[in-house]
Amino acid sequence: MNRHTIQLDAQNRLRHFLTIEGLKRSLLIEIMDLAESFSGVSEQSVKKVPLLRGKTVVNLFFEPSTRTRTTFELAAKRLSADVLNINIAASATTKGETLLDTLHNLEAMHCDMFVVRHASSGSAHFIASHVAPHISVINAGDGRHAHPTQAMLDMFTIRRLKGDFHKLKVAIVGDLLHSRVARSQIHALSTLGVDEIRVIGPRTLIPAAAETLGVHVYHDMRNGLRDVDVVIMLRLQYERMNGAFLPSEHEYFQVYGLTEDKLALAKPDAIVMHPGPINRGVEIASDIADGRQSVILQQVTHGIAVRMAVMALTMRSHAAALEAT
Amino acid sequence: MNRHTIQLDAQNRLRHFLTIEGLKRSLLIEIMDLAESFSGVSEQSVKKVPLLRGKTVVNLFFEPSTRTRTTFELAAKRLSADVLNINIAASATTKGETLLDTLHNLEAMHCDMFVVRHASSGSAHFIASHVAPHISVINAGDGRHAHPTQAMLDMFTIRRLKGDFHKLKVAIVGDLLHSRVARSQIHALSTLGVDEIRVIGPRTLIPAAAETLGVHVYHDMRNGLRDVDVVIMLRLQYERMNGAFLPSEHEYFQVYGLTEDKLALAKPDAIVMHPGPINRGVEIASDIADGRQSVILQQVTHGIAVRMAVMALTMRSHAAALEAT
Amino acid sequence: MNRHTIQLDAQNRLRHFLTIEGLKRSLLIEIMDLAESFSGVSEQSVKKVPLLRGKTVVNLFFEPSTRTRTTFELAAKRLSADVLNINIAASATTKGETLLDTLHNLEAMHCDMFVVRHASSGSAHFIASHVAPHISVINAGDGRHAHPTQAMLDMFTIRRLKGDFHKLKVAIVGDLLHSRVARSQIHALSTLGVDEIRVIGPRTLIPAAAETLGVHVYHDMRNGLRDVDVVIMLRLQYERMNGAFLPSEHEYFQVYGLTEDKLALAKPDAIVMHPGPINRGVEIASDIADGRQSVILQQVTHGIAVRMAVMALTMRSHAAALEAT
Repeated sequence: MNRHTIQLDAQNRLRHFLTIEGLKRSLLIEIMDLAESFSGVSEQSVKKVPLLRGKTVVNLFFEPSTRTRTTFELAAKRLSADVLNINIAASATTKGETLLDTLHNLEAMHCDMFVVRHASSGSAHFIASHVAPHISVINAGDGRHAHPTQAMLDMFTIRRLKGDFHKLKVAIVGDLLHSRVARSQIHALSTLGVDEIRVIGPRTLIPAAAETLGVHVYHDMRNGLRDVDVVIMLRLQYERMNGAFLPSEHEYFQVYGLTEDKLALAKPDAIVMHPGPINRGVEIASDIADGRQSVILQQVTHGIAVRMAVMALTMRSHAAALEAT
Repeated sequence: MNRHTIQLDAQNRLRHFLTIEGLKRSLLIEIMDLAESFSGVSEQSVKKVPLLRGKTVVNLFFEPSTRTRTTFELAAKRLSADVLNINIAASATTKGETLLDTLHNLEAMHCDMFVVRHASSGSAHFIASHVAPHISVINAGDGRHAHPTQAMLDMFTIRRLKGDFHKLKVAIVGDLLHSRVARSQIHALSTLGVDEIRVIGPRTLIPAAAETLGVHVYHDMRNGLRDVDVVIMLRLQYERMNGAFLPSEHEYFQVYGLTEDKLALAKPDAIVMHPGPINRGVEIASDIADGRQSVILQQVTHGIAVRMAVMALTMRSHAAALEAT
Repeated sequence: MNRHTIQLDAQNRLRHFLTIEGLKRSLLIEIMDLAESFSGVSEQSVKKVPLLRGKTVVNLFFEPSTRTRTTFELAAKRLSADVLNINIAASATTKGETLLDTLHNLEAMHCDMFVVRHASSGSAHFIASHVAPHISVINAGDGRHAHPTQAMLDMFTIRRLKGDFHKLKVAIVGDLLHSRVARSQIHALSTLGVDEIRVIGPRTLIPAAAETLGVHVYHDMRNGLRDVDVVIMLRLQYERMNGAFLPSEHEYFQVYGLTEDKLALAKPDAIVMHPGPINRGVEIASDIADGRQSVILQQVTHGIAVRMAVMALTMRSHAAALEAT
């Protein structure tokens, strides 16, 4: 099945949200526009809308992530859905049941949405291609492949703070090789038509084929940051590195850590982003993380609104499908 | 206290649900009828009824079971109850508090229902005989003793697909010795008046006293399956076997695994059931589990409706008790 | 920042609830009066009030406590809040993120309240002094320092059963040295103006400076219990003792365990309290724990109402702050 079209229904509505790759610009804009309307909900005194009342959202986490799980749980609860948290590592698969049997059981319980986090690339697609028609799958990070809600909250943050994408130069810095976040960001930034995407990192952490994605590769961070509008720092993925990709934390910080003197080369009003959790003094200096150009906590806030938007959109497709049956 | 009457109140309403043994046919029918009315709820767009709004249901799991816990949690939430999940192994009992103290504390917090899963037979009865008058206890599986909601969802499934119980021949296949599910099924099938109950398995896995329960024992699976209407496969309980009950998985599958050629001996429209999670290629062939006669996933769906029904019935007794005080 | 004033807003309303120390008598009375109005909620058929609907309460537990976590979760749910349970030990801090980054992320998700349990004294104050203006912090026990909701539920219990504080003699018995509960109780009893506070325990378990708190110290339990109206037994905190404070459990029980003969020295209508979980036969005899003078389970019941009251009060300050912005 075509990896890019499985996530759309016959009317080109978002049925699953698995990857940014292959999605049209208009759909990314629709997600951001809807997120804009939800961003007020979290600031109200009563932070609830009844849009998903009576729906059951299952957080299916095959690798642990309190932070990401929490943002999806909050987004679902603020849409009034019921939420089940299932830590699959500790669950039925240990009793010898296959993954597909576990999924089919949850379907049979009339769950409506699976939010999936998995260590293997492609697992969200695999699950989406095997679920019943009444289930929507949202990829909350699969291996090195994609983390599309993270990329969309980043786009939402850039749009709020910088407006028009067409004039922007964006630099993504760090461990591109292992980063599902960066892959999704590059697809989103391309689709939204930014002027220039730069990736900055050591040779060992930039995929060989990076330039085929339409990005400019820099190994010298000072050159790469010159005149950019947006600096996206990536997290050093200790847990995903099993080779000798890096000389040492300290040396990495010297060369690729974001510090005041390096940031001074970007535009004066450049914003600094990071998907979190941050390693202070490893990929970013503390005073930059907490400084006036940092929008890291705004990203977190926007994450709730964007996840609410994606959930609401896939449930629209879902409602249409239910009506049709 | 009489094990069979503790679960009824003075008006013969279900106060606890601990075992099928000793319950009247009319009560089993009442559970199935109410489950029928709830089975629509899970198919609605808004899967909620306000019947248990403001009630607190506590999942008290002394042995882990994500699947069973999930079905009770979903049933409670679809009845609009608040749910607390308490994993007792990791809880206060490790601080030296006794089980009864833990229970009395939860009672003092004005919880309304304990859903209990425990490795020891009789533990649900023990708890029910010690709780305050305002608490209902539902047995979610105690040792080798009983798993009454599982048996009732099986009866509900049989009734939906086969109608009248009186004409049916039902075979239960596998590890009867360790199976609380089978014990509860046999009581339910007897009470509902099926024509014939057969149990099929190796001598080491059939309790010596099986025939006193009014069942026919077969050690040859082909003989046992001949002309039955319903085939209930049991799960091989690896985790509950600590002796040398079985030669090998492979040999077991050859003799007692459900395969196409063996199933061909049953009636052509026989249905195949399994409480899950299934061990493909151990007690059941994959193509049978996924085949046209399998109703395994329907069982899962019915499990939600039946658990909603049992919870709602015990809360009716509860409401009457509250009014009386 | 002044440890005693940080918990009040400019209008002297309770913004955080960190310690009893420094709070005025009128505020303690306000908490008890509000708890009185909530204590009916848990006895209603529908145990819910919509006061915190749409608010997000985060249980931030840095040391595990199923019991305390459960009471806060129930209190929050009965106020209609959404609840997130975050076990910090297992969470982002293991990925190298600092505690403050974790907190700021939860703030950015527009959470409203942090209920904090931590092994280090002062941690709740530390967190309260660093959170955003829209967050209230409730101390659910920090090291040896304070456990103010426990103390307030004890005061509520004493007021319900004994009325006027001014005439009462209260004895606190056991491991005062390690007890955050006792510290908070002593501050509350002093502020509410009891006639006499006695602390009873071995020299090794009474802080050297105890008498500066205005209590009378007894090492002989029989002398200490004479004519008291309230006996508060403390839990032996095995898990917090790392030296040789005690000869043996058995010997401790002989000397400082509450038994019928010792209790006979108190007033005939004296009540017996314990914060739980109890160690039967260590600090208290079973027949006393279950006896006519024990109010231990009433304390648990009152714990829900008092926690609802504290949550509701801090959210009033919160609402006023939101309106002001």
